[in-house]
Amino acid sequence: MPDVILVLNAGSSSIKFRAFGVDGATMHLVLRGQVDGLGTAPRFIAVDSDGNTTTRDWDADPTLGHEGAIEHIGGFLRSYGGGYRLIAVGHRVVHGGQMYSGPVTVTPAVLDELDKLVPLAPLHQPHNLSPIRIIARTRPDIPQVACFDTAFHRLTPEVAQAYALPSAITERGVRRYGFHGLSYEYIASVLPRIAPAAAAGRCVVAHLGNGASMCAMVGGKSVASTMGFTAVDGLPMGTRCGNLDPGVILYLIDALKMEKQDIEDLIYRQSGLLGVSGISSDMRALLASDAPRARFAVDIYTYRIARELGSLAAAMHGIDALVLTAGVGENASAIRERIVRDAAWLGLELDPAANESGGPCISAASSKVSVWVIPTNEELMIGQHTLAAIHAAGSESERTPDRTRRIPP
Amino acid sequence: MPDVILVLNAGSSSIKFRAFGVDGATMHLVLRGQVDGLGTAPRFIAVDSDGNTTTRDWDADPTLGHEGAIEHIGGFLRSYGGGYRLIAVGHRVVHGGQMYSGPVTVTPAVLDELDKLVPLAPLHQPHNLSPIRIIARTRPDIPQVACFDTAFHRLTPEVAQAYALPSAITERGVRRYGFHGLSYEYIASVLPRIAPAAAAGRCVVAHLGNGASMCAMVGGKSVASTMGFTAVDGLPMGTRCGNLDPGVILYLIDALKMEKQDIEDLIYRQSGLLGVSGISSDMRALLASDAPRARFAVDIYTYRIARELGSLAAAMHGIDALVLTAGVGENASAIRERIVRDAAWLGLELDPAANESGGPCISAASSKVSVWVIPTNEELMIGQHTLAAIHAAGSESERTPDRTRRIPP
Repeated sequence: MPDVILVLNAGSSSIKFRAFGVDGATMHLVLRGQVDGLGTAPRFIAVDSDGNTTTRDWDADPTLGHEGAIEHIGGFLRSYGGGYRLIAVGHRVVHGGQMYSGPVTVTPAVLDELDKLVPLAPLHQPHNLSPIRIIARTRPDIPQVACFDTAFHRLTPEVAQAYALPSAITERGVRRYGFHGLSYEYIASVLPRIAPAAAAGRCVVAHLGNGASMCAMVGGKSVASTMGFTAVDGLPMGTRCGNLDPGVILYLIDALKMEKQDIEDLIYRQSGLLGVSGISSDMRALLASDAPRARFAVDIYTYRIARELGSLAAAMHGIDALVLTAGVGENASAIRERIVRDAAWLGLELDPAANESGGPCISAASSKVSVWVIPTNEELMIGQHTLAAIHAAGSESERTPDRTRRIPP
Repeated sequence: MPDVILVLNAGSSSIKFRAFGVDGATMHLVLRGQVDGLGTAPRFIAVDSDGNTTTRDWDADPTLGHEGAIEHIGGFLRSYGGGYRLIAVGHRVVHGGQMYSGPVTVTPAVLDELDKLVPLAPLHQPHNLSPIRIIARTRPDIPQVACFDTAFHRLTPEVAQAYALPSAITERGVRRYGFHGLSYEYIASVLPRIAPAAAAGRCVVAHLGNGASMCAMVGGKSVASTMGFTAVDGLPMGTRCGNLDPGVILYLIDALKMEKQDIEDLIYRQSGLLGVSGISSDMRALLASDAPRARFAVDIYTYRIARELGSLAAAMHGIDALVLTAGVGENASAIRERIVRDAAWLGLELDPAANESGGPCISAASSKVSVWVIPTNEELMIGQHTLAAIHAAGSESERTPDRTRRIPP
């Protein structure tokens, strides 16, 4: 029965999973899938490495929650094909606060600390932690590793993290955390092989998915990011507004009499590409549309990328490379073309044929700044962290929590 | 009895004024002063062009308000020296909304329109309008001209003005207005004489006063600004926070249980240089201090300027010139040095001796981007607008409101 590491990414109404087969220090994807519609119309889907698909619906049990979903995923792993033996679970956790600059093996004390971060990410953190608690209770023998979206940015210079607020507020944890850290870390991990000069130099990585942000890296370390205290700031996204004057929030409360819940809904779920276009949050739909509002949404999207690229280049005192990744970055050649064209002043020059064929290098030979398309893989990053953590634990005389990356608050 | 134009800048507890003598199309400053402490300990001070100072205290009447202050300023003008004849009043008005891209002669209809903008700037607009109403009632014969902090940015590209919000919210007026427009307009008006190439090219102007912002101008027209919907966004300032994730406001409400009023106080009056340093909002005090928090406040200040400079250069696809103005920009050579040094990657190179002596040109001959120190003069700009408006009115057969700059909403 082959060993697998299970990677979980849990939200309020879904749990996405991947199972990686482990053979010594190497990993390969054996299953991927999700349970979504939790609490309404739960549905399980899993696809194996040959493309065979298994589904199940819970029409009769719309109340299926995280616990039922995890139980089903676990049972599926044990029985699918010849069955898999679960050796560890890695979790995507949005917030590691000021404490974690890397993954951590979960203990009750760690879980308590992560629980304290719920106010920093109330929409995500509780759902990320829920499966950890469930598995700790039902399978206490299984090591669990929490991998954070914030960790990669934790050691960015203090001047980039700090808002110009009184220290009493900053000390409550109000600072720029930056997110999408597992994506950036994955890119940083593969970049030395794909583009050694970019990896060693000043590189902006643009993670352009449904969520979108950009990270300035020098020698593979984050020095600045467009996201801030929350994952709503920075670039416009599928449904999130990105950069917004804090005074707008006060205006919405004061002049438009909006409640906090409605404001949250507005800036997280009704804005961005969807809000501006009034059509879709999906870049493919907007690029296919002739509607002026669709074109304007794309204009705002690329304009803000251009502005943030200048700002991040300033954080590095120049730029040697740009990497585009995630859904839009990996697939929308028209958007890539606009991004590179708008950045001609920084020395970026496109190779149109390479851009159409998807790279990986899409800059012209004469371009002063190299441009790359590199698919991201946050789940593999979590899997690798989890494998490394259990190896590290195995090499110690007894299993102790991995606290080497703990930073005093 | 010489003709004068009175320029008023009214806040909640003070009215600043300047009187400009008018001789045909030329103007010269004859008196400057203010009434401050309105409602608590009112005090009048005026200084004439020879430096003679006149003061008055209202110890016996702490309830003196805008009306009493204006009455006193008017009486002082009529009687000082040989007396001055008031021919028009120009007002600094923070918000011209989406309608005004230039100054406007005030009529009852205009005043109604400006009143509708109070929700966009509740802390300033009512106080700016108060003296207009008082003078319209007490001196209906005197033409009054409203000059807006927003007007200079009104014609920036829509993609720079728009937030990625649903159009229903944008149509309520939630957009990036930009402020300090009278300062930028003044700089744009003198730049062709001082630095013709900078005026014709791509120029960032940094207005670094107690309030601080930066504006990207191409050929003297604003194409982007660091301030947004309110004057709290963008750069850290004396007491304002500048750039802040909108999610921070929701956190302050939700997790820290702060009231809107307290949040406003925090981000407008307790943050910025004062908040970070815990020492002072005055750059001179911070530069003179050895305290680590003072140094850190200066670090954040110059770091954010560097980031925004990159972002604004991106809005112009490059940069040909940088102009530094207002209190810090005109006087703090140490800050100027840091700004230019941090922007070396953009081609800025300092002439240290010229920087110490205050310019106007402080870049080295070999610098690819020219750098200038130019004192701003928002009051003179208002005076010139006011003079131009009464000349335009005089050249018509009857006085009609100046609606040439009115933009349909």
